[in-house]
Amino acid sequence: MNAERLPLVAVTVGDPAGVGPEIAVRALTNRAIRDSVRGFLIGDAVQIAHVAAACELAADVEPIGAPGDARSDTRIIPVLSEGSLGDVVHGQVRAEYGLAAVSYIERAVELARNGLVDGIVTAPINKEALKAAGSRYPGHTEMLAALFGTPEQQTYTMFTVERLRIFFLTRHHSLARAIPLITTDRVRTAIIDIDRLLRMLGVDHPRIAVAALNPHAGEHGLLGDEEDEIIAPAIDAARETGLDVVGPIPADSVFWQCRQGAHDAVLSLYHDQGHIAAKTLDFFGTVSVTLGLPVIRTSPEHGTAFDIAGSWVANPAGQEAAMISAAQLAPRVLGSRDAMPAGQTEQ
Amino acid sequence: MNAERLPLVAVTVGDPAGVGPEIAVRALTNRAIRDSVRGFLIGDAVQIAHVAAACELAADVEPIGAPGDARSDTRIIPVLSEGSLGDVVHGQVRAEYGLAAVSYIERAVELARNGLVDGIVTAPINKEALKAAGSRYPGHTEMLAALFGTPEQQTYTMFTVERLRIFFLTRHHSLARAIPLITTDRVRTAIIDIDRLLRMLGVDHPRIAVAALNPHAGEHGLLGDEEDEIIAPAIDAARETGLDVVGPIPADSVFWQCRQGAHDAVLSLYHDQGHIAAKTLDFFGTVSVTLGLPVIRTSPEHGTAFDIAGSWVANPAGQEAAMISAAQLAPRVLGSRDAMPAGQTEQ
Repeated sequence: MNAERLPLVAVTVGDPAGVGPEIAVRALTNRAIRDSVRGFLIGDAVQIAHVAAACELAADVEPIGAPGDARSDTRIIPVLSEGSLGDVVHGQVRAEYGLAAVSYIERAVELARNGLVDGIVTAPINKEALKAAGSRYPGHTEMLAALFGTPEQQTYTMFTVERLRIFFLTRHHSLARAIPLITTDRVRTAIIDIDRLLRMLGVDHPRIAVAALNPHAGEHGLLGDEEDEIIAPAIDAARETGLDVVGPIPADSVFWQCRQGAHDAVLSLYHDQGHIAAKTLDFFGTVSVTLGLPVIRTSPEHGTAFDIAGSWVANPAGQEAAMISAAQLAPRVLGSRDAMPAGQTEQ
Repeated sequence: MNAERLPLVAVTVGDPAGVGPEIAVRALTNRAIRDSVRGFLIGDAVQIAHVAAACELAADVEPIGAPGDARSDTRIIPVLSEGSLGDVVHGQVRAEYGLAAVSYIERAVELARNGLVDGIVTAPINKEALKAAGSRYPGHTEMLAALFGTPEQQTYTMFTVERLRIFFLTRHHSLARAIPLITTDRVRTAIIDIDRLLRMLGVDHPRIAVAALNPHAGEHGLLGDEEDEIIAPAIDAARETGLDVVGPIPADSVFWQCRQGAHDAVLSLYHDQGHIAAKTLDFFGTVSVTLGLPVIRTSPEHGTAFDIAGSWVANPAGQEAAMISAAQLAPRVLGSRDAMPAGQTEQ
């Protein structure tokens, strides 16, 4: 494909003291990645040049003034430079690093709002540094939703790894608090949302599976009654409207089935249910996709790894997978931007 | 290795109406399996011959009178025949089939008690059929414990797949009921038990990891306080006695880490936590091992699959993995039979 026709993706390098800049540079200089996506970094060009040299990559930083200037050449690292950090102390929580990470994201959103990029890939940020910087957002999704002016409840997290697509009914709650949040209305609405999101992503006839909450899907009430009383009625209601949905399926089978192609997506009822499935399978291959924003946004499913930052041994596989996913999903989302639904799965 | 020196394993074919006889025969006639383990089937020799013919296997049933008569030859299916079923109707719950399945297990236990086999591999049984047969045991583990006279709380289920070893703190409870069963005392005792069991299995210096209950291991209380208040104190107490134990580690990382060799075993706090990890990774490669009985017992982690029984398309990979595991673990358990601990992980 003509390189200029590839999806154009902005990569925010994340917290400068973490592994973000390193994995961003490594992924961008990987030929297989560059063959699939046209990308550039948003960060401090001087720091990024230092990182590239420390990693002994045969590539030079090329400052650019606009996304369209980014050349598709693995020997070049196009950087839209933002701020100046001086010498970075790796592995440290600092307000200035938190502020820098936020400024990269703000810049990416500005570009996206102006239609200059097809997607955003975010390298890891650090919650403590964000807090130290006075940011009121606990993470990327909340920040992106606010910057884009998208209501948070209209954003959706989807995990992809291998053939798995996983959506979440609940996420950042203790397990004990997540259980009562599983209601028939929420499950039904989530199924409807997932159907629309999958169609938007190019799945013509979405086949959705809902995971069970209890062992053996409750075994007819013996091991819990949520399946019979809450989840099955939601599935029945969704099915009556013509949706192709099955479940509740025992959680130790449903993700395996999806890997084999039996389902197009699985609704995970709580955080760890889908997280364990995806990340045990391939920790670095698991990509978190945010749907519902004006552009596609992807990220690796790992953190800043302060313990190894600056040792130049970070694994860029997660960042690479995120770039590939962004390229694959971006055109579809762009092509159906008006089809974004409102809904109730949690980000 | 001299075939006569291989571990000798009794294979109960399970419910005759399920896929058990089929996968048992397929596994036993697989050369790679026979090179690792000496096995024979316990079931109705006439049914088993019918299954072998239906599967078009180039092997003949050879009735044997005692385990020691079992020849290691893939063209021969040694069968210790038990009962006579007549024509089997596949996929049906019948009391007589439940009774037959029980009789196979009773025979295997009798052989094991007399020191005639090194291990038992159990093909799937059907709970409904057991119930129809008037059995008071819901499954294999309870039945085996009773037949061997081993207190149930002294038996332990361990899952193995790839490099993963998973033990369970709780299992057959609804998720809501499992959470309050997670106590400091139970976690601490489970760690001690796992350490002893791993040593028994030949792990010289067991490195144990405890999974967290909540997302991000509770994130310092923000997403749940069980980690700080219940789990960490148990780990500290175990560590003070010299055990090598880490945690609580977020559940979406700990199983991945174990796959990479960072831990020798993971303590899963609830059923689906460990089940999702193992079976999403490799549904048919996941083997359930029962420890604490006088012999090692393994089984595939799938059921009777009544929907495909008699279609001769069943996947024997789970049964094969169970046979390999039995062979690998049997000598170790036999060599340290007196070292079996009492304890509190659930079967």
